[in-house]
Amino acid sequence: MEAKACVLHSAKDLRIENVPVAEMRDDQVLVRIGAGGICGSDLHYYLDGGFGVVRVKEPMILGHEVAGTVEAVGAGVTRVGPGDRIALNPSRPCGKCKFCQAGEQQHCLDMWFYGSAMRTPHSQGAFRERIVVGDFQCEPVGDTVSIGEAACCEPLSVALHAVQQAGSLMGKRVLVTGSGPIGALVIASARYAGALEVVATDLHGAALKKAAEMGATRTVDVSQPPGLATGEFTAEKGYFDVVIECTGVGAVIKSVLPVLRPRGALIQVGVTGDVPIPIDVLGPKEIRFVGSSRFHREYALAARLLKEGRIDVKPIITATLPFERAVEAFQMAADRKAHMKVQLSF
Amino acid sequence: MEAKACVLHSAKDLRIENVPVAEMRDDQVLVRIGAGGICGSDLHYYLDGGFGVVRVKEPMILGHEVAGTVEAVGAGVTRVGPGDRIALNPSRPCGKCKFCQAGEQQHCLDMWFYGSAMRTPHSQGAFRERIVVGDFQCEPVGDTVSIGEAACCEPLSVALHAVQQAGSLMGKRVLVTGSGPIGALVIASARYAGALEVVATDLHGAALKKAAEMGATRTVDVSQPPGLATGEFTAEKGYFDVVIECTGVGAVIKSVLPVLRPRGALIQVGVTGDVPIPIDVLGPKEIRFVGSSRFHREYALAARLLKEGRIDVKPIITATLPFERAVEAFQMAADRKAHMKVQLSF
Amino acid sequence: MEAKACVLHSAKDLRIENVPVAEMRDDQVLVRIGAGGICGSDLHYYLDGGFGVVRVKEPMILGHEVAGTVEAVGAGVTRVGPGDRIALNPSRPCGKCKFCQAGEQQHCLDMWFYGSAMRTPHSQGAFRERIVVGDFQCEPVGDTVSIGEAACCEPLSVALHAVQQAGSLMGKRVLVTGSGPIGALVIASARYAGALEVVATDLHGAALKKAAEMGATRTVDVSQPPGLATGEFTAEKGYFDVVIECTGVGAVIKSVLPVLRPRGALIQVGVTGDVPIPIDVLGPKEIRFVGSSRFHREYALAARLLKEGRIDVKPIITATLPFERAVEAFQMAADRKAHMKVQLSF
Amino acid sequence: MEAKACVLHSAKDLRIENVPVAEMRDDQVLVRIGAGGICGSDLHYYLDGGFGVVRVKEPMILGHEVAGTVEAVGAGVTRVGPGDRIALNPSRPCGKCKFCQAGEQQHCLDMWFYGSAMRTPHSQGAFRERIVVGDFQCEPVGDTVSIGEAACCEPLSVALHAVQQAGSLMGKRVLVTGSGPIGALVIASARYAGALEVVATDLHGAALKKAAEMGATRTVDVSQPPGLATGEFTAEKGYFDVVIECTGVGAVIKSVLPVLRPRGALIQVGVTGDVPIPIDVLGPKEIRFVGSSRFHREYALAARLLKEGRIDVKPIITATLPFERAVEAFQMAADRKAHMKVQLSF
Repeated sequence: MEAKACVLHSAKDLRIENVPVAEMRDDQVLVRIGAGGICGSDLHYYLDGGFGVVRVKEPMILGHEVAGTVEAVGAGVTRVGPGDRIALNPSRPCGKCKFCQAGEQQHCLDMWFYGSAMRTPHSQGAFRERIVVGDFQCEPVGDTVSIGEAACCEPLSVALHAVQQAGSLMGKRVLVTGSGPIGALVIASARYAGALEVVATDLHGAALKKAAEMGATRTVDVSQPPGLATGEFTAEKGYFDVVIECTGVGAVIKSVLPVLRPRGALIQVGVTGDVPIPIDVLGPKEIRFVGSSRFHREYALAARLLKEGRIDVKPIITATLPFERAVEAFQMAADRKAHMKVQLSF
Repeated sequence: MEAKACVLHSAKDLRIENVPVAEMRDDQVLVRIGAGGICGSDLHYYLDGGFGVVRVKEPMILGHEVAGTVEAVGAGVTRVGPGDRIALNPSRPCGKCKFCQAGEQQHCLDMWFYGSAMRTPHSQGAFRERIVVGDFQCEPVGDTVSIGEAACCEPLSVALHAVQQAGSLMGKRVLVTGSGPIGALVIASARYAGALEVVATDLHGAALKKAAEMGATRTVDVSQPPGLATGEFTAEKGYFDVVIECTGVGAVIKSVLPVLRPRGALIQVGVTGDVPIPIDVLGPKEIRFVGSSRFHREYALAARLLKEGRIDVKPIITATLPFERAVEAFQMAADRKAHMKVQLSF
Repeated sequence: MEAKACVLHSAKDLRIENVPVAEMRDDQVLVRIGAGGICGSDLHYYLDGGFGVVRVKEPMILGHEVAGTVEAVGAGVTRVGPGDRIALNPSRPCGKCKFCQAGEQQHCLDMWFYGSAMRTPHSQGAFRERIVVGDFQCEPVGDTVSIGEAACCEPLSVALHAVQQAGSLMGKRVLVTGSGPIGALVIASARYAGALEVVATDLHGAALKKAAEMGATRTVDVSQPPGLATGEFTAEKGYFDVVIECTGVGAVIKSVLPVLRPRGALIQVGVTGDVPIPIDVLGPKEIRFVGSSRFHREYALAARLLKEGRIDVKPIITATLPFERAVEAFQMAADRKAHMKVQLSF
Repeated sequence: MEAKACVLHSAKDLRIENVPVAEMRDDQVLVRIGAGGICGSDLHYYLDGGFGVVRVKEPMILGHEVAGTVEAVGAGVTRVGPGDRIALNPSRPCGKCKFCQAGEQQHCLDMWFYGSAMRTPHSQGAFRERIVVGDFQCEPVGDTVSIGEAACCEPLSVALHAVQQAGSLMGKRVLVTGSGPIGALVIASARYAGALEVVATDLHGAALKKAAEMGATRTVDVSQPPGLATGEFTAEKGYFDVVIECTGVGAVIKSVLPVLRPRGALIQVGVTGDVPIPIDVLGPKEIRFVGSSRFHREYALAARLLKEGRIDVKPIITATLPFERAVEAFQMAADRKAHMKVQLSF
């Protein structure tokens, strides 16, 4: 059997091609993909052929934010059955290394993650019509959420994991910097986790509007003075208990330190290279500056929250195109002012 | 009553002068100082007249690492009595602000800390023959430890607090970068707290020798390749569970990230300005980069450990001069290759 | 000035009497009480003259769950002003003892708590028309919540504190045993804190109906077999991550151990005497059995949640009588099958 | 190949018999056992044929506290080689269940533990001359510790795990109730982990003497009044930060609550059935009553501490008999007043 897929050959050379559909083993599931969201890393592959030292060296199917419908299951599968709508977990930790055996699967020494050129041969992605996957990768999403919303399960997992890194948010004042797709999902996740206030920032009014729709209790346009540098936010050594940083912009990271209370947590979700950090602030304030990477247990939680309608991701999906128009979709996704999440339908 | 004191008038203008000894209230104690250690901040005041925006603007008695003997106590004092040998806690948090009421006294909004120009009028220091202090500032050290060793109670508290920031060290692999006075005390504190391995680094052989005396299980001369960049330390995403960074040198901070395991803790004790931090390492490895500032509950613990001989600080005291030769002592302390801790005797 | 108050002289001897209103100091506030809820401890005082070794030994005004309107403020008060509607925090920790200085004010060595015979002279309570209080005891509740709902701030604080004891509830399966007033507020608090599932139990259908209104995702009538002893709940060593125990009934405490996962938390809110605990279950499963007592920081949070309508306490208020009919109200409150929270209006 | 083993047929029917030695797979190791300690559970099997619902239903080799020397290794084994002296980890979690994948292997749903009748067929034990084991079960102990001391690795792991359950002990006041073999190892472990004070109790002077040898800073004979009920221990709501309970005696558990500070931890290591717990103390004091079961990561740590001589277990080994005299050894072990740990030599 073959299926059409979005295959990247090199920067800006994205083609719709037929790829083989694997034989299904007893513990596997055949999934007809319904929708897939374009992530920042997909975009980096498409625009630049990679990021940092990670480069596409062979044709690679893109995509890791997908959902679909089960078409068939292996003899040993009980977790899902034909017709079930599922979100597809794109990460397959080895289960055996010391990190997996410590419950820290996101640091697996032999991780397989869809649509990634981190290892060679590359991990082929999930922007394709049909795919055979492990049963443990399938999280049921029920029949009421749209398949496009279900395809937001992966970035929602990233957001929930970031929130988890902060410890209990009950009654806390939380600042979310950057109201793009991840920031927006972090806002919703922080509200879900009981944050008392969720203040969101961005440079663009449209994003701030989305932030409010996702549950921000206040928004701050940091393109205009004073931005965060208000008396309210800097008084008594800092207003916020937790900052969840989603921009990956050095100046933004630096700008939050004066508004973060002593012993507060700065959770870093946005990715970038070197950023100057004022040690003479981090030290004396005893800031906890904590990285956040992907997710593990949070995927099942995200699927459940989508299934039960507890987190509504509709506001972040700003465009959906048939996968045959993937090139166009990627170009739209590159316009971050105009778009939050652009999805492909299959 | 008057007492002789080491008064700094401006950079390099340190004089021995008479200062008044305050009247003793009912809850106060008159202490005859026996020894005082010169700290890095004392040295900054002496050499540069301050650091960063903190500048000496009026004559200020230096010193906050002191110990001595109780000469008299107020009518309401039961905690200590005449003749008791004590280490003197140089910090007086207000007890009322929201940080004090949360048990985070090191972040007190109205902290009074001996020998500090952070506020004006400056907090006068403790390099003087006699001083009147609050009874709660006096921690008994018994009769077996020398008064010079007792004067190490303050930097030992800093070290213990840094260790505390890392959580339980039982069975952990700990890296201590920088084997100066604070690094050396951190080594001893980490051993006390049950670290399985304590690897210490420095650029100088003499410091590494002290590190070993203080309990390092291994030392690494980072002035020579490969330094920390060995296969043993970088394998499986990093060897160490915890790094306690005592140099405040940007290149050192950066060098520890590859040898720190995912989700490991980097406790920042060394002070400096901006340092470039690779977010693309901190994020994916989910590093916990945590500041450490001063101490609170740890002062009583430090006094107790000194009193009971559980931590031996003798190796770090490299010279002791009568306080009348303070200028000479400060010049010796400035030679960090030759000296660890230089103390004044009173 | 005098005000009418509900004064207990001995068991079942509750009288409406005039009591003096204290002079207001500069840091105090005169509050006209609007509503007060009858708590289990009020009821014990009324029915039995006390509980355990705590006995009413002198006339005592009852009541600690109250809210009202500010009538006047002292010269130094900025926190609230005349006309403000507030919930009144009935606890006044000393602020100075070692527990207060550690941020554990609920364990204050010199706690003053309204309407309590724990110390003699007793702490007079707040079921009175007017009362003079410290400004720090006044938490604004805004103008949209009813004053009766605002008077639920104290039990809501108890519930939030219990939830806090469990650590982050995000994505957790929580069992709440007992759906009386505290159980109902715990249900709402657990939902607020991000619990994925909140299963509530009770012996009575009416209470279970309230539990569902307060946010329980499922209810279990434990008066009927199998109660909690289902395959679903006992499989794989236990279904629930957290149990919040609100009955104080020994058999109930014991019944939850088989459905609590290894290393899960059992938070004890219900009060009782000795209860047999199977150590051969607690040990091997490494259960965390944790007491929960009153609240501190949670009071301000509770007021804020009521003010902003994020937690709706209306379902638990089942009757409101004018305070002149207090005896009748206490008799109604004693009928726990018929009533959740009975309030007095002033 | 055959080897002699200590096989229990039923209560008090312990025979020395030949048993087959399994074929060694590529990832396995052939170990010549050198010494084995008799544990409380071995004794229960011998004296009573089991405990609670766990009964010996078929002949079972006893023993799980053993150490020996590697005789041969499979082709794929790199962890140890012939001649290496090792402590043998008697637990083999499945590695795949949800608890193993969460780093909570001690709660494995399919645990295999040497010398246990918890499952049928029983898990055969390690009191035999030769045994084939997985390479991951072998922890090197070096050449300086005696093989009998190495055989204390298992109970030392239990002790270290109990200490781990309490969180950081640095600077804490710890009470250890019961100074039998486990209590004694807990004392040493708490000292290793940085406890400031370790107060040990027992009914017998001999045990208290051992407690002092193992590092107790003070001992209390609780067979005599006042036992723990002193003003020093009960003042300010309780002296101890942590209690590690090693007796499993209800009266002892109850006796520690008044001397445990609010929010303190009571770690339950001793095993017993139902024990009455005063909820009106646990609740108001917010005690954390936490079970402790076996160990996982601690086994490697224990082996390392023994290897490096950091914990000296010699004081607890009170007798060693050749395994052929096992019956006699079990009878000695049953006399808990006269003996701490009785070992067999092979």
